[in-house]
Formats: sequence, structure tokens, C-alpha cells
Amino acid sequence: MHNEPIALNQALATFDALWSPRIVTRVNDYDVRIAKVHGEHLWHAHDDTDEFFLVLEGELTIALREPEGERTVVLQQGAVFTVPRGTEHKPSAPAGAAILMFEPTGTPTVGDRHEAVPDHVDATTGHALGA
Amino acid sequence: MHNEPIALNQALATFDALWSPRIVTRVNDYDVRIAKVHGEHLWHAHDDTDEFFLVLEGELTIALREPEGERTVVLQQGAVFTVPRGTEHKPSAPAGAAILMFEPTGTPTVGDRHEAVPDHVDATTGHALGA
Repeated sequence: MHNEPIALNQALATFDALWSPRIVTRVNDYDVRIAKVHGEHLWHAHDDTDEFFLVLEGELTIALREPEGERTVVLQQGAVFTVPRGTEHKPSAPAGAAILMFEPTGTPTVGDRHEAVPDHVDATTGHALGA
Repeated sequence: MHNEPIALNQALATFDALWSPRIVTRVNDYDVRIAKVHGEHLWHAHDDTDEFFLVLEGELTIALREPEGERTVVLQQGAVFTVPRGTEHKPSAPAGAAILMFEPTGTPTVGDRHEAVPDHVDATTGHALGA
């Protein structure tokens, strides 16, 4: 089967689940994932990898616990941000957003360390698009 | 210095050079690069890495030389595509485009094998944003 371009807006239209990333393509041993998000995710940290975010639609807030203290960054549509490995972070999107992430295949959405996973968050390493 | 979100449209506004990627952030040992493109790049192949493209503005065409023959894929704004390692490819954008790429830090824009590099193409491993 030919490898074809994927329109992200069409890919986003194939699912409704929140905080439940779909893998749109792979780059070596990395996934490119997209997700619809609304409300709050949870505090978590990835000990062994950075995590890249690009906001496709809406606005994403990421709270960060850094050595200097806690702060919040706000990503408007079209903004990018990389959370460094080991940094506890909590994404949220009070008004909803669609995001793209780049991270090693197998990276769990809830990280290696996390608080209790609420029912509305999918603890996953990503789902196949269309699955 | 704090790591802050970067608005891609503002980052694109800081340079005019074509086919000359700027590194907007790093994810582990990968770069996230953005480029303005117009006209034709050149046939080249990356022997050791896949290369990811996301079209931020405009339309990007990628010609591919695959075992089954040559074909062309067209990425509209908001589309993604990964060129597999080892596949000769030639990006072009007759009407101009802005693109985002993920690839390992140090990956040359002209690949490991390539035809003669035309004057309008920058053979680089990416420039720092603002440099």
C-alpha cells in the first residue's frame, strides 16, 4: 500500500475521544500523534524523553514544575513547545484544542510518574488512526 | 533563560531565505525545523533517516523514486507525510509554501546522496532561529 499524505483536519474528524492520541505517521522510532483535548490532563513526567507539542486548533495551557518553581505556558494555535524530559507537566485546554505531538514510539500519555489517572484520560501509547 | 512557546508564524517572519531551514526547537536528538520554500529543491536521499513534513502554508509537492517507479505526492496546507529513509525525493513548491520538518539533529538538507546543489538551495544542517 502506498504511503500517502494525511490531511490532519480529516484525520481529526475520524475520532471524538479526548486525551486519546492517534498515531498519524512514524519517523524512525518516533510517533507523530494527534489528539483532541478539553479540560485537564494530569500531572506527569517522562523521565527519558522530551515531548513536543504543536497546537493545531484552539489553545493549550501547560503547567510546569521546574526547579525554580511552578509556571504556566500558553500555546495559541500555531505555537510549539518542548517539555524537557523529567519535567512534571500538566496540559489543559479549558475551551478545547487539537494538538500534534512528537515523541518516541511507546511513550505513555501519562508518563513514567503520574498522579491518579482520571476517568476522562486515556492511559495509552497511542492508537492507530482509524482503529 | 526560560523555555517559552514559539509562534510559528512569528518565527517564519524572522527570515526570508528559501530552502534554508531554521531550528525552532529540539526534541531529544531531533530538530524541529521550519522553512520557506518556493520553486524546486533537488533530488536527494537520506540513507539513515526518515524525514517528516508538515505543510504550514501553501502547497508542497514531493516527487519520489520508489522501487515501483516514480510518483508525486501533493501536500496541501495541514497535511503530513514521511519520506522513508533511502528514498530519493525532490520537494518543490511552484507557488511557495512554509513547512515544518522533524529529523535527527545534524541531518543535511541535501541528504547523503544528491544531484548537483543549485545556487538557490542552502546545503545545511539547519540554522538557529534568529541567527
